[in-house]
Amino acid sequence: MTVQNRQELTARLDRLQAELAAQDIDILVATTREHLYYLTGVSYVPLERPFFALIPQSGPMELVVPIMEEVHLRENKVADSIITYREFPAPEGETWQAVMSEKLRDAGNVAIDAETPAFIVEALSECTPKLSHAIERVRLVKSDWEIDRLRTSANYADIAMKRILEIAYHGISEIEIFGQSRGVLVEVIRETDFEPMETDITTAVWPNRLAMQPHGIPTLDDRLESGAHIALVLCRVNGYATEVERTFFVERPNEEQRKYFDTMMEARALAFSLTKPGARCHEIDAEVNAFLASHGLSDNLLHRTGHGFGLGAHEGPWIAEGSNDVLEPGMVISVEPGIYIDGVGAFRHSDTVLITNEGYEIMTHIPTDIDAMTITPYKPLKRFVGMFTRTMVGVR
Amino acid sequence: MTVQNRQELTARLDRLQAELAAQDIDILVATTREHLYYLTGVSYVPLERPFFALIPQSGPMELVVPIMEEVHLRENKVADSIITYREFPAPEGETWQAVMSEKLRDAGNVAIDAETPAFIVEALSECTPKLSHAIERVRLVKSDWEIDRLRTSANYADIAMKRILEIAYHGISEIEIFGQSRGVLVEVIRETDFEPMETDITTAVWPNRLAMQPHGIPTLDDRLESGAHIALVLCRVNGYATEVERTFFVERPNEEQRKYFDTMMEARALAFSLTKPGARCHEIDAEVNAFLASHGLSDNLLHRTGHGFGLGAHEGPWIAEGSNDVLEPGMVISVEPGIYIDGVGAFRHSDTVLITNEGYEIMTHIPTDIDAMTITPYKPLKRFVGMFTRTMVGVR
Repeated sequence: MTVQNRQELTARLDRLQAELAAQDIDILVATTREHLYYLTGVSYVPLERPFFALIPQSGPMELVVPIMEEVHLRENKVADSIITYREFPAPEGETWQAVMSEKLRDAGNVAIDAETPAFIVEALSECTPKLSHAIERVRLVKSDWEIDRLRTSANYADIAMKRILEIAYHGISEIEIFGQSRGVLVEVIRETDFEPMETDITTAVWPNRLAMQPHGIPTLDDRLESGAHIALVLCRVNGYATEVERTFFVERPNEEQRKYFDTMMEARALAFSLTKPGARCHEIDAEVNAFLASHGLSDNLLHRTGHGFGLGAHEGPWIAEGSNDVLEPGMVISVEPGIYIDGVGAFRHSDTVLITNEGYEIMTHIPTDIDAMTITPYKPLKRFVGMFTRTMVGVR
Repeated sequence: MTVQNRQELTARLDRLQAELAAQDIDILVATTREHLYYLTGVSYVPLERPFFALIPQSGPMELVVPIMEEVHLRENKVADSIITYREFPAPEGETWQAVMSEKLRDAGNVAIDAETPAFIVEALSECTPKLSHAIERVRLVKSDWEIDRLRTSANYADIAMKRILEIAYHGISEIEIFGQSRGVLVEVIRETDFEPMETDITTAVWPNRLAMQPHGIPTLDDRLESGAHIALVLCRVNGYATEVERTFFVERPNEEQRKYFDTMMEARALAFSLTKPGARCHEIDAEVNAFLASHGLSDNLLHRTGHGFGLGAHEGPWIAEGSNDVLEPGMVISVEPGIYIDGVGAFRHSDTVLITNEGYEIMTHIPTDIDAMTITPYKPLKRFVGMFTRTMVGVR
């Protein structure tokens, strides 16, 4: 996103202002990084210097920012009204607290984004802001413009996953996989309108030894050997996040591993069969969990069936029991039921999935079947034979 | 930091608990990424799944975490008491809110770290937590162990800056400078106990055209030509942040540029002359600002004289008017008075500086004088001559 995409930004503001009217909010204050990027197109890491976007129920938004932001915000015409404060900390009267109190004093019903750091909300307590999820809600359904960006992101996720699977072999070390992200990043730089602060590509494999620790961190010299491993690509390309994950093997899977793989695939098929506009997210998760429980796996679940994507790698809608979300066309989610079997392994595929009028479209395109996910010496040999044949043809 | 550094972690907990006793806090809840890493050694990005460290005034800390974190936290013995919740969202009774309400109900005076997202504080409102800066305060003075890590980080900052200055030439593009971070990262991977989630190296130059926009973002094809440019290296190496920044030229500076460079150097010397234990941070900033005002530059300041380093790239102590901080041995700060002259350029050096018993020690070691910071064809030529001479000697 850049501030040049005026039409998209205007449409976002319109949708948000309709939401504010519906919730009887006179002015909404946005302070967190993704929300600010969504509303202004500006990449800003707040740290100790807050950046406030003030969105009235109608009319243009105003910004309250540290003085060092002024020139580039004006040059890029991010907003007509830009008020500056002396950066934190500052002598009394020149602080952001003073400027914001002045701005909000007679503003009516004030709301502030719910993820705002608590010390900011406390400092504005005389305006009694209520916490709001309005921006989060508006972000749930993606515009065509955003779906385009998500497709681009998903495409690089696919490219990265293909590379991981192409270079994988029995004994490959984590650092070889970790290094793949670099080449994909170079392609993003070459081929897109690259936004360095909004782009990040992670390629990694959770080796079998970390099966029960989806947030354990592999070491660079971890090697892939027996058992199920999970390859993951987390892409954030020019603002938009997608992911693809695959359970794969570098030895022929044994019967037990096949059994759990198949069960995961059935849970996945069940989740997809329920994925359509109007579906209640908590019901999808409940059905998947019930299916896995019927296979005796209720103690082998560590997470929900899925989550949303957008500017965030994790955002609503939440495909989880306890969620109130209902699927709508234009939402983008992960479908990733997973099972975690101590001593055997973790079994989980994840794809990035667009909800359409008809049902869904999978935006990532990596094979899912166990044969494609079994990388043994046979496959590289086949590839060599192919190369050899082509060479022969070339010679003839 | 890893959880293996037990002694360091214990010492941190002791210091924090002394602070809690002084502030009459019975239990402190930490929720934000850097504070959690500081207290547990665990790299965790909370997103929508909070990770709570509960620190009582005495005794061991407890953790409340999503269930998927349990195994690796137990395996690494991060805490004796680890309570899990079903990840967000979850059916009533299985949520983090339910678990935390139960834990905090009769806990006495509850405090929570002030940077906690507001929606978490609101969800815990029945325990009426007050916002606390206790961890922030404890983090201000670095232990010997931390100073060691900061030295390592500063060393890689130096290495990266040397490379930028070595490869710079009239017409160099931003992408060549941006690319330097990669080589330094490889060295960090090879030479240290590498923590991928806690390491990030940025090399960039603010070209003269962005002089007035310290947070404008250069494009990859920006080229360095006439005027003052600011090279910056922002290092976070295995948790610890440092920086070095240099104003430099790829053409001989003219008289006007020299004048402002000299003034910046005088402001810098003034700031260093005031840098010592016991110094009030707001006085240092006020004296530097008064000096610059006496040169007619009071409208050419965009930021304070400096800020602290540690796990954060920006943290206390704040060398700024309005700050209540007082320098103590073991604090690590930036010294970076800067002036911003529309149509001429930006003039700022920044170094990472340790406060010692005697005064200070500069942890980054890049030359500061205008001759060293002037990279013109003469220098490469000299280098070629040197090569030529060596070759001749070799032949003889």
